[in-house]
Amino acid sequence: MSLDQSELADLERLVQSRQEGHGLPGEFYRDELVYRADVERVWRRGWLFAGHTSEIPEPGNYFTLRLDTDSLIIIRDDEGQVHALHNVCRHRGTMLCEEDCGTVGRIVCPYHQWTYARDGSLVSSPGMQEDLNKSELGLVAAQLQELEGMLFISLSEEPPDFEEAAAQVQPFVRPQGFERARVAKIVDYDVAANWKIIWENNRECYHCNVNHPQYIKANFDHYNADDTSDRIQAEIEMANRRSEEKWAREGLAITHTSTGMAPFPDADRDLWYSANRTALVDGYLSESMDGRQVAPLMGDYTDPDVGTLRVRTMPNFWNHSSCDHAVSTRILPAGPQRTLLRVTWLVHEDAVEGRDYKLEELMPFWQLTSEQDWELCERVQKGVQSSSYTPGPFSTYKEYNVDSFVRWYLQQLMKPAAGTQR
Amino acid sequence: MSLDQSELADLERLVQSRQEGHGLPGEFYRDELVYRADVERVWRRGWLFAGHTSEIPEPGNYFTLRLDTDSLIIIRDDEGQVHALHNVCRHRGTMLCEEDCGTVGRIVCPYHQWTYARDGSLVSSPGMQEDLNKSELGLVAAQLQELEGMLFISLSEEPPDFEEAAAQVQPFVRPQGFERARVAKIVDYDVAANWKIIWENNRECYHCNVNHPQYIKANFDHYNADDTSDRIQAEIEMANRRSEEKWAREGLAITHTSTGMAPFPDADRDLWYSANRTALVDGYLSESMDGRQVAPLMGDYTDPDVGTLRVRTMPNFWNHSSCDHAVSTRILPAGPQRTLLRVTWLVHEDAVEGRDYKLEELMPFWQLTSEQDWELCERVQKGVQSSSYTPGPFSTYKEYNVDSFVRWYLQQLMKPAAGTQR
Amino acid sequence: MSLDQSELADLERLVQSRQEGHGLPGEFYRDELVYRADVERVWRRGWLFAGHTSEIPEPGNYFTLRLDTDSLIIIRDDEGQVHALHNVCRHRGTMLCEEDCGTVGRIVCPYHQWTYARDGSLVSSPGMQEDLNKSELGLVAAQLQELEGMLFISLSEEPPDFEEAAAQVQPFVRPQGFERARVAKIVDYDVAANWKIIWENNRECYHCNVNHPQYIKANFDHYNADDTSDRIQAEIEMANRRSEEKWAREGLAITHTSTGMAPFPDADRDLWYSANRTALVDGYLSESMDGRQVAPLMGDYTDPDVGTLRVRTMPNFWNHSSCDHAVSTRILPAGPQRTLLRVTWLVHEDAVEGRDYKLEELMPFWQLTSEQDWELCERVQKGVQSSSYTPGPFSTYKEYNVDSFVRWYLQQLMKPAAGTQR
Repeated sequence: MSLDQSELADLERLVQSRQEGHGLPGEFYRDELVYRADVERVWRRGWLFAGHTSEIPEPGNYFTLRLDTDSLIIIRDDEGQVHALHNVCRHRGTMLCEEDCGTVGRIVCPYHQWTYARDGSLVSSPGMQEDLNKSELGLVAAQLQELEGMLFISLSEEPPDFEEAAAQVQPFVRPQGFERARVAKIVDYDVAANWKIIWENNRECYHCNVNHPQYIKANFDHYNADDTSDRIQAEIEMANRRSEEKWAREGLAITHTSTGMAPFPDADRDLWYSANRTALVDGYLSESMDGRQVAPLMGDYTDPDVGTLRVRTMPNFWNHSSCDHAVSTRILPAGPQRTLLRVTWLVHEDAVEGRDYKLEELMPFWQLTSEQDWELCERVQKGVQSSSYTPGPFSTYKEYNVDSFVRWYLQQLMKPAAGTQR
Repeated sequence: MSLDQSELADLERLVQSRQEGHGLPGEFYRDELVYRADVERVWRRGWLFAGHTSEIPEPGNYFTLRLDTDSLIIIRDDEGQVHALHNVCRHRGTMLCEEDCGTVGRIVCPYHQWTYARDGSLVSSPGMQEDLNKSELGLVAAQLQELEGMLFISLSEEPPDFEEAAAQVQPFVRPQGFERARVAKIVDYDVAANWKIIWENNRECYHCNVNHPQYIKANFDHYNADDTSDRIQAEIEMANRRSEEKWAREGLAITHTSTGMAPFPDADRDLWYSANRTALVDGYLSESMDGRQVAPLMGDYTDPDVGTLRVRTMPNFWNHSSCDHAVSTRILPAGPQRTLLRVTWLVHEDAVEGRDYKLEELMPFWQLTSEQDWELCERVQKGVQSSSYTPGPFSTYKEYNVDSFVRWYLQQLMKPAAGTQR
Repeated sequence: MSLDQSELADLERLVQSRQEGHGLPGEFYRDELVYRADVERVWRRGWLFAGHTSEIPEPGNYFTLRLDTDSLIIIRDDEGQVHALHNVCRHRGTMLCEEDCGTVGRIVCPYHQWTYARDGSLVSSPGMQEDLNKSELGLVAAQLQELEGMLFISLSEEPPDFEEAAAQVQPFVRPQGFERARVAKIVDYDVAANWKIIWENNRECYHCNVNHPQYIKANFDHYNADDTSDRIQAEIEMANRRSEEKWAREGLAITHTSTGMAPFPDADRDLWYSANRTALVDGYLSESMDGRQVAPLMGDYTDPDVGTLRVRTMPNFWNHSSCDHAVSTRILPAGPQRTLLRVTWLVHEDAVEGRDYKLEELMPFWQLTSEQDWELCERVQKGVQSSSYTPGPFSTYKEYNVDSFVRWYLQQLMKPAAGTQR
């Protein structure tokens, strides 16, 4: 499955062919070879956001996810520990859990009833010889880390350092109270676009003015150095100043105070994570259609005026949180021209649908914004198929983060295989 | 189309990578290369069950079948002889018969009316030059052998010896009277699993207890040496003893008298065929839902208490016959992860639906059992896609036949190409 | 994307394997390698019929077309000039126009509002840096030539000579008045057959007698030297003689006066275009179901008795024109086993549907004939998939043009890459 020497040489030539400050050559969005390299060198190396602990609050609760041709079970064991287990029986390879989510006492293979505990260990294999070494036949586990209720997995045996990421991100995230949240809604999307087109779309707000009428009402990041008027600049400063009064409360200060989007990712420092708090437009207490609060305050918040918290991790996660709800987007590749996306809405764990919030008020802001983006991404995919496609120049002041993404991505692609990948 | 040197080397490496007593590595179930090797070295070499003569009793009756990208016409000629003809006009390559089955006087190509006799010879090609050598332009024939009403074809010009197989199988099959049978029902299935997963499922009854509630009531073969209680052993012996009284009648003796499934295939002796008679559970005269006879006796039978006849041939056929009906399963590969299956129910030729048998009594036993298996097979296919799949150990006393199948299969794969394949 | 040395060698071997006077080996109809060679060496080299000027009469009118993975916009600019522009934004590669046809003031990319004039030049790119060289970022143009209202494009930078083709074809086409026509109907077909099967079907009328009951009533070209009776020969001569009286009127003489189809294409002289006027059967003034005129006279015609005009260009166009309407067929490949076909009916520009013509009288003749052919082509595709397919001999007097097509095609395939292809 690994790339051979001739494929690596082809890949290197492709990487070299990218012109600085320009988009990626078309092959990066459509070729099987590049896709295999992406899976091997990006997706099986890094930390992948899997979901929130609040999706599986009780022992035996699980959800499954699919990365390329792999399926994994994310399950809480009897001691409350969460595990990421490959969804494949160690006997004949049967897929164990076909449901999207559920609750199990033990994981029993339907084929020959090999039975695994919730931590993946093989507890029973009736019909097998006595001398079977059960301890070697537990479900294959992936690495798993929990950060403030966010679950990250890695298929690599030598994944990047997680502690540093956790230390940097945690102070920002803690007040949001993800661990005390509950899932209000999950929407899954099957998007006909390469996963990198999704990220390139996410990493600029150059397209926001025309395509995101809801988003731009609440946010400032579609303004950039070169096109920010004095009036807007004053608005941003006023909004930022509001946060100063709240410096006392830990983690609530606005940390992204300039125009434009927060820089991310950082190829030079190889940073795959980022979190910041940003001001919302005056009058917007939440990323909702009219800016009004649409659910009870989450986490440590006692005042709705907390701006918006943003977290992102490469290669597959971003979250936008308001005082009253949080929206997580998870990306998983399913082919060179196909990406599975999941958008999850979280609210306070005590909030009751119908009483404390209504889905029709909670969801539209991010549902519309997300779907507007997926449609654009599918349209880009159609265009980059063309033999005539030539990558164009990036806007230096509106697409700096797209350039950062491309540089970070190419860096991953050219990193020599370090540890053993599974 | 044949494998080149580098592909053969890859294949050999894959074959070597299989650990004894364990399943096949994942590539065998999903890779295009292995599939091509399977088609070339297994499917185009051996004898393939095509159907029963009773499907085409009259001259001009035909049915078609599809093996990979090939289509064949199995047709009875004017003298009653059956032929297997490639379903491709010798002029411009048009597919001749698009129907599943039918009756024709002559085979006329719809494109330019080249006309073939029922034996495939070109009898007329209006519009072609006078000096056309018609004798060289008959439909390409495959080898065909008939054994007690079972039709076997081979695409190889040097197929394995058929006489020996016929001599071994015939005595078992003759009393069932396939030649005097008629088709009660055909059901076709399109299963999303590699053909080897189908066989591995068929070659063990380890999965029966939980998955086949109907089957295990009638049969003993889910019991094995290590888990057969004294009570069951006594039952089996009693059932076997019943047959002794019938030794006089040729071919009706129970030949499989031990617990577990009859060993098949046999890699050491390269046996691709097998037939045996097995006892049914006391009270079961037929493989029907309640064990009662559901149709008139077939063939030479005068007493319903004949146990069950089982015939299998590699790589694509098994049959389970009771005193009153017979069920044949035909396997044909349609891609690395797709197999076309046909299940055919036969009854005595004089039996009339509604009067002598009802489909709702005749079919459920094997329809349910078959569909339970196809569902398991599709689930295995999903699991072995995973990059984490590692073949597990076989149960030494319940999966000996799966191991036999794997060893037989690998042996075929490594046999040097002997004759010319078409 | 270009073929490498080893692929070229494989291709050459395939070309050599064709037996003279016989069809193409099966690989030519199904293999990805051959398809890529076809796209590179046939489709990106030659002149491709795109459509008629009458589809886009006004400035800003456009239609799109898809060749393999490329999409192009055929658009009329402010000065009335028609352009063929790649449908791909020069910034990030977004597909610009997703509609089949329409009218635009400017072409605005929905992603970041880069704006192109109707001639493809970049007129505005808000949000980009000041020093952007707009003149280098216009839409990529393909070559375009107009011939009597027929639009031809080429993706090659050194396409074949067009002037000579125009000079030869123009005198035949001019009286038909394509420039003064309007589109009565367009029907699109997605046909599961290789594009060469479509042409091979088109290049002989050997299949007409049985498959085209409508067509053969109106036309003579299903008769050939060897099977033309004296009565038919006399009919043809009489029909041809009718045209002599009209010699005075330029371009209306019957130029194809022998039995059988007009020879085309011409591999020896590398002719990719052809036009001729042919007699219709006595009583047929138009290729309509009953031979009667079904719409007002087109172009310069003052008398309906003008026979039928036929134009063809390799690799993707044929037209059959009667006195009162014209039918153009456009072929575009969409994969080794998939071809997109468009059939367009034209009438005089002043003709009004319902008043001057009815679609149910105008369309059936060519709609039926076309669909009869697509069905045959799909059936050939199914047959040539077979491993047993062996190309058969062509009829020397009925399939001479199929042989001409095959020879012309193989010639293109073996021509060394001359200019730079895009």
